[in-house]
Amino acid sequence: MAECFERVAILGVGLIGGSMGMALHSAGAAGMVVGCSRTESRLCEAKRRGAIDSYTTDPLAAVDGADLVILCLPVASIPASARTIAPVLRSDAIVTDVGSAKACIVDALEELFDGRGQFVGGHPMAGSAQQGVWHARANLFHGATYFVTPTGRTPCRATDAVTSLAHQLGARPVHLPPVDHDRVVAAISHLPHVVASGLASLVPELCGAFADVALEAAAGSFADGTRVAGSDPSLWAEILVQNRAEVLRALASFRARLDAFESALSAGDEAATRELFGLGTEVRRRFEAREARPEPPGQEG
Amino acid sequence: MAECFERVAILGVGLIGGSMGMALHSAGAAGMVVGCSRTESRLCEAKRRGAIDSYTTDPLAAVDGADLVILCLPVASIPASARTIAPVLRSDAIVTDVGSAKACIVDALEELFDGRGQFVGGHPMAGSAQQGVWHARANLFHGATYFVTPTGRTPCRATDAVTSLAHQLGARPVHLPPVDHDRVVAAISHLPHVVASGLASLVPELCGAFADVALEAAAGSFADGTRVAGSDPSLWAEILVQNRAEVLRALASFRARLDAFESALSAGDEAATRELFGLGTEVRRRFEAREARPEPPGQEG
Repeated sequence: MAECFERVAILGVGLIGGSMGMALHSAGAAGMVVGCSRTESRLCEAKRRGAIDSYTTDPLAAVDGADLVILCLPVASIPASARTIAPVLRSDAIVTDVGSAKACIVDALEELFDGRGQFVGGHPMAGSAQQGVWHARANLFHGATYFVTPTGRTPCRATDAVTSLAHQLGARPVHLPPVDHDRVVAAISHLPHVVASGLASLVPELCGAFADVALEAAAGSFADGTRVAGSDPSLWAEILVQNRAEVLRALASFRARLDAFESALSAGDEAATRELFGLGTEVRRRFEAREARPEPPGQEG
Repeated sequence: MAECFERVAILGVGLIGGSMGMALHSAGAAGMVVGCSRTESRLCEAKRRGAIDSYTTDPLAAVDGADLVILCLPVASIPASARTIAPVLRSDAIVTDVGSAKACIVDALEELFDGRGQFVGGHPMAGSAQQGVWHARANLFHGATYFVTPTGRTPCRATDAVTSLAHQLGARPVHLPPVDHDRVVAAISHLPHVVASGLASLVPELCGAFADVALEAAAGSFADGTRVAGSDPSLWAEILVQNRAEVLRALASFRARLDAFESALSAGDEAATRELFGLGTEVRRRFEAREARPEPPGQEG
């Protein structure tokens, strides 16, 4: 199933793009990797770190002759970048992206790459609040779920190639239609980011003169619950707006759950509070059981 | 400032009570420690782990002759337990508790210990989703804030003794009136627990047939954001109900923040979303800066 790409173009050499290049090299899965970015200092650093073999600030030059093009750009920049490169792609080039919201991107890119390149959407569930190529590492994708989001219009070759790519990166490819992907990531990533940010932001408002005391005292639940509030606001505003239909749906359900807590607490109803809290405990334990489970070899969903 | 207690009675030998005993021993701060619990197996384990020197299932026997009594019980059990022991306490015995909600407990216990024992409320900000004496450790309180909550009625001797105790446990004592304490912990601990539970509980509802895929794929933001959802629902229902006035206040502010996210996202307003997310980022960075700061020696608030 493993495939070696002759010439891989990575557009965007941040944490994900840089790690992608390092992982491709480390797996021997690419003949050469060309990096492209508007910022030359990032490209230098990506080359220095062994993520890319050569670079250019011109996307057309980057994709020229490439048999695999990976768009590792912020979600809102992906369609424009795709429009730029579409005219010069090899017709057999595999094209994929790593955007965190898929339905919008896949719609736009399927239209764009119709008959030019072979596109399938992708989304590795790996990342960090620490952005940038400086934090890139070859094992970023190890054990992570890598969503591949084919539709009825997707060439099988593209789905197979990106599934194989995910394996080569050490990730666990899982196929999901774009809309279902967006629903799932709203629940397990986008809503948690909104909530973490909301929780962190309230400390000054709630604690007033004791805000500093509160931040000194804050331990496990606050430290963990707000960790991703440290993520880049620009990046996350883009992602949340791109996937707003599903994020709003998730927010509505979440608010209904908070309403239930509020009713139980207002009534001083300990049994109802325990039952509500227990719903979360049960799911958390399912999650921990999965986390603790050994990785089955070559699993795919 | 350090003080050695001759005979310490710890009522309740779970994670906190057990760790308290181990830390007292390790600091050489107690002549002997008597443990008390309704469950003999816990007492055996506490003794085996060196948390206590002897034990009894009779609270009256436990506190007999003690110069320090620490109530390490679930918040809802503290007043009843205090009522039991009050008649037999030495009049100069220092009494404190470790409950997570203070205003209710302090009100009840000040009344009860008026002229019998010398009471001040306390709350070490240390804990774990892993409950029980099996997880107790001498360094549980190292570097943690230890809230001491004196009021106008509190004997200075009690405040001084529990402040000194906190130092001996390796914690950082901070004095705060009970109501302010309850407001601060609602923001940095109780609300984060409600939110973590809510987030975890939504996965089946939001992801439907893909709930298992979602839990397999969930990474950093979900793993961190829901960690404390694994805590004991009974324990947390008690705490939330005890501190419901402040938890409801925190929930109302949190829901207002989610309303703002909802408006920004409904309007597809990336700038407003970025600004909202950024409020959390700013506070999180303040928190991280404090976390990274070296501990000043013997600090006290």
